[in-house]
Amino acid sequence: MREIHVIGIGAGDPDQLTLQAVRALRDTDVFFLLDKGEAKSDLTGLRRDILRTHLPEGGYRVVEARDPERDRGAGGAAYSPAVGDWRSARAEIYERLIREELGEDERGAFLVWGDPALYDSTIGILEEVLERGAVAFAYDVVPGVSSVSALVARHRTGLNRVARPVQITTGRRLAEGFPEGVDDVVVMLDAQQAFRRYADRDMDIYWGAYIGTPDEILVSGPIAEAAPRIERLRAEARERKGWIMDTYLLRRHPAED
Amino acid sequence: MREIHVIGIGAGDPDQLTLQAVRALRDTDVFFLLDKGEAKSDLTGLRRDILRTHLPEGGYRVVEARDPERDRGAGGAAYSPAVGDWRSARAEIYERLIREELGEDERGAFLVWGDPALYDSTIGILEEVLERGAVAFAYDVVPGVSSVSALVARHRTGLNRVARPVQITTGRRLAEGFPEGVDDVVVMLDAQQAFRRYADRDMDIYWGAYIGTPDEILVSGPIAEAAPRIERLRAEARERKGWIMDTYLLRRHPAED
Repeated sequence: MREIHVIGIGAGDPDQLTLQAVRALRDTDVFFLLDKGEAKSDLTGLRRDILRTHLPEGGYRVVEARDPERDRGAGGAAYSPAVGDWRSARAEIYERLIREELGEDERGAFLVWGDPALYDSTIGILEEVLERGAVAFAYDVVPGVSSVSALVARHRTGLNRVARPVQITTGRRLAEGFPEGVDDVVVMLDAQQAFRRYADRDMDIYWGAYIGTPDEILVSGPIAEAAPRIERLRAEARERKGWIMDTYLLRRHPAED
Repeated sequence: MREIHVIGIGAGDPDQLTLQAVRALRDTDVFFLLDKGEAKSDLTGLRRDILRTHLPEGGYRVVEARDPERDRGAGGAAYSPAVGDWRSARAEIYERLIREELGEDERGAFLVWGDPALYDSTIGILEEVLERGAVAFAYDVVPGVSSVSALVARHRTGLNRVARPVQITTGRRLAEGFPEGVDDVVVMLDAQQAFRRYADRDMDIYWGAYIGTPDEILVSGPIAEAAPRIERLRAEARERKGWIMDTYLLRRHPAED
């Protein structure tokens, strides 16, 4: 029976791998590295670095493939269907990779930035491949330090305040309004910099890009002062590196509580 | 200058420590283990096991102290103030520990289950100690795999669904009503088993106790079927071990979306 590990490899710092993740790497015959296009090929390089660091003796194969383009032009309402099509297209690719590149008794692995549980489609795609029924395999998930945990650790703050909730959401959702019932909101996948909409509100922002890597940038403070600074640093970094991975926590000051 | 590491040590599986956490352990002279009373002394034992596993050569000191009792009898409204008093009482203890047990040029560490960013007071208490001004130190935070990440990894599911938000909250809050604007809710610190209130709703639950340890128990499925089973298993486990650490994800089926 084929086996697959879905391995959370932390937010960028190779030391943020768990011992369990390192063990899973060492147990793997074939690594599948999906490339989202030249802009993100740095990320494939970082994954190859992780393999070289933790598996200096080699003894594994790497199979690279290109992820299909996601239709990012779609509007808000069309977002989910576009993701659905994209996921099916990926399921076809994953199915082919597993069937053609992984031997019947071998172990494969997908390396996921952060934690496979947060805004990552690997588990969903593998379930779709299993449902299609063309190839059988067992799989497990190795949790990782999420970019969210890495962000707030660097800022030395918590995600939630005492006995209060925290919400994790997308930039697209934040652009529609501040979530109800919470004052602490973590925002991921925010290409539109939706935080700018809240620059006149009584909030603090804790922002970070390329967290845990030599390119790490951190900014925190009242959003009115921090937002323009983040906007500038983000544009410069994006220009310099060709891509950006950033996350932030918005902390609203409750009126009375 | 004294230095302190706040180290996330994962949800219970000693292999869930990151390499960064292991490095921080090795860099530590004095470990402060706070005991919440005899019911939880297993947890202190587990932390000592982690030290023995990762620091077989010894060379460190362990200082144990008793955490003050939290006033858990207080009602909903009184919860935050009670926590505030409790935090101040802990700040006094932490201040004394750091001043009396940690040499001027030594490094201390607090070991935090899961991730120090989620429902843990260590960072807040250290900030309070610094504010009091009686002892100076630098500190950093080593993020860990949270019990939330460990839970959903074992269930091989994600925290959020595609492009949707997830909220992390407490049992106390869930007992007041299902959070607005989200269909995926992770619940921590739920001594009252607030999930029972939702047993007639169209939801799935992914529940786990002692995750990543030999005592691990996992239950998932439609909440109507799972809730009575969880209630029974939880009572049995609590009886057997004298304490329980559990977490769950509630996933509401959206009417139309």
